[in-house]
Amino acid sequence: MVGGSKLCWVSMAAKPIRRGELGLIAHLRRQPQRGFAQLTLGIGDDCAILKPPANSEIVVTTDFSLEGRHFLRHTHPARAVGHRCLARGLSDLAAMGARPLAAFLSLALPEALAATRAGQRWVDEFLAGLLTLASQHGVPLAGGDTAGSPSNHVLADITLLGSTPTGRALRRSGACPNDVVYVTGALGGAAAELAQVLRRRRPAPLRDAERHPHLLPQARLAVGQALLRRGLATACIDLSDGLSTDLRHLCAESHVDAVLEAARLPQHPLLARLPHKAAWPLLLHGGEDYELLFTAPPTVRVPRRICGVAVTRIGHIVRRRRGQSEPQVLLQQADGSTAELRAGGWQHLTTDH
Amino acid sequence: MVGGSKLCWVSMAAKPIRRGELGLIAHLRRQPQRGFAQLTLGIGDDCAILKPPANSEIVVTTDFSLEGRHFLRHTHPARAVGHRCLARGLSDLAAMGARPLAAFLSLALPEALAATRAGQRWVDEFLAGLLTLASQHGVPLAGGDTAGSPSNHVLADITLLGSTPTGRALRRSGACPNDVVYVTGALGGAAAELAQVLRRRRPAPLRDAERHPHLLPQARLAVGQALLRRGLATACIDLSDGLSTDLRHLCAESHVDAVLEAARLPQHPLLARLPHKAAWPLLLHGGEDYELLFTAPPTVRVPRRICGVAVTRIGHIVRRRRGQSEPQVLLQQADGSTAELRAGGWQHLTTDH
Repeated sequence: MVGGSKLCWVSMAAKPIRRGELGLIAHLRRQPQRGFAQLTLGIGDDCAILKPPANSEIVVTTDFSLEGRHFLRHTHPARAVGHRCLARGLSDLAAMGARPLAAFLSLALPEALAATRAGQRWVDEFLAGLLTLASQHGVPLAGGDTAGSPSNHVLADITLLGSTPTGRALRRSGACPNDVVYVTGALGGAAAELAQVLRRRRPAPLRDAERHPHLLPQARLAVGQALLRRGLATACIDLSDGLSTDLRHLCAESHVDAVLEAARLPQHPLLARLPHKAAWPLLLHGGEDYELLFTAPPTVRVPRRICGVAVTRIGHIVRRRRGQSEPQVLLQQADGSTAELRAGGWQHLTTDH
Repeated sequence: MVGGSKLCWVSMAAKPIRRGELGLIAHLRRQPQRGFAQLTLGIGDDCAILKPPANSEIVVTTDFSLEGRHFLRHTHPARAVGHRCLARGLSDLAAMGARPLAAFLSLALPEALAATRAGQRWVDEFLAGLLTLASQHGVPLAGGDTAGSPSNHVLADITLLGSTPTGRALRRSGACPNDVVYVTGALGGAAAELAQVLRRRRPAPLRDAERHPHLLPQARLAVGQALLRRGLATACIDLSDGLSTDLRHLCAESHVDAVLEAARLPQHPLLARLPHKAAWPLLLHGGEDYELLFTAPPTVRVPRRICGVAVTRIGHIVRRRRGQSEPQVLLQQADGSTAELRAGGWQHLTTDH
């Protein structure tokens, strides 16, 4: 692991192995590398070789998961860190309506972590979290890189490749005035759970995924694929930076403005216990819910559930104000009054807004 | 940059911008994003969209470039760090005989770097080095991720996608007994220059690339593509970990052994000034030369130059010893005596072997 080596059975097995590496290799070897039609050649060469479906385009995304920025080792269970590492990339594929092809993991471990039994367990759990989610979505881990971390931080970077039928990928840029704005699932849950997690001194045991919107987010791949297949959406983005920021992104790329209806926003159950003043910022600005935000023409009938996931109408698109280059999002209250909703500026490890 | 955001004009421009980000955006905006037939959609959405050539497979590689592991800020010029970051990935594509499709950069900068004018210059120079090399090879920077570094280290991870005609990619696994072993260029130069670089207190000015085998390595893309097109090579690998280690990798994947002829090994001019005892380990074990090591049947006529690059015959492949699972590489001296050549175990920032 010192210096760095490609994820490669032979090269890693041929060198003196530290505990951290052993766990890494053992985990990856247990993973089935065959049985993926799209994977011509997996780990063990200079590159992996993928065979994309005919008449398709390739979509690509990369996402850091850096200790101290995206997670803390003393509050986040290792399994959740591995799950979240992959989920971030899967959610980007979902927002394009793509089917996953393969994942690539670059992973740098601190010397101290690789040298202890507890550290090895941490790496094993991290990989188990990542590979369990990969397996649920039929995504092979096809390669990557390993290195010793230059500090005491675990550093991961995930690359996801997916495919969409040529010319059909969902984009941020297709929303038109009068389109209706929809969101999947519920909002603010991840930020609410993060606040709980940061109050802990050690990681708490994981329960069902539904109870962990922050620790075990679910990428909406099936919904995104259904939106593409049925031709429902004019534009789509995943909610990683929070509703107020990501709707602005969509409006910016589509050169439109938007109006959100406050009373329609679907609130995550974790917000129910909080006073209104505490819940509202999480709902509007809380990041990392990894739900899909999309637009559809008013003439299109969008079901209330897609692939088992609730879909809620939360607003509509309006023409960009004349002469303005920056998008504007208005928040409309039940009494009809409106005010500008500014981007909340989500930061991963804080919940101050 | 705090927290993290996709490389996205709109999202980055909409937030308060720090110096480091400004440089990043300015540089990336100056880069032409149009004019690449394979790039349907570049930076600015949840994913980039690529259209690979018909009847092709996709090859993928990821490579960390971590400060303190792969480079030092006080000895390596920023431009060289950016160049090397991309060159590592391009060399992996070369070893498959692939044509580059696109690059994706995940980049985490320390707060202190993003906050100063000198830091901004460093980032500008880093990106200039990366983008100049990308432009030389017609590779668009199609996306990536940015984050604040959790320590005082610059952290980069590069993903390269390339394409090869279906079923034609060069692999490590095709070498057969009696095949001849060839290498491009010269060996040991990168390790020799690294030793010079590490003795410095500050980065020295860069001259022509030929004088900088460590700081400005040249990925052998044209040679790799020619080997594939002309059907010359049975197996291929790039020399990133050093001759002794990488030839073992090739032998392991091909289930063969190999014999190297000491007198034939092409020595880089930088080794000429060193005593034999100092030069020899660099030649055999020095990493990061990024030359191609390949095998061809003895009946195939391999030119002495391919695409202007010297190609030298340095040994041959032999049958794996009976009952042995690990590959063996023998080094044969001019007098006919042989000894086993063990893998040297290259580490990026040391030259001790």
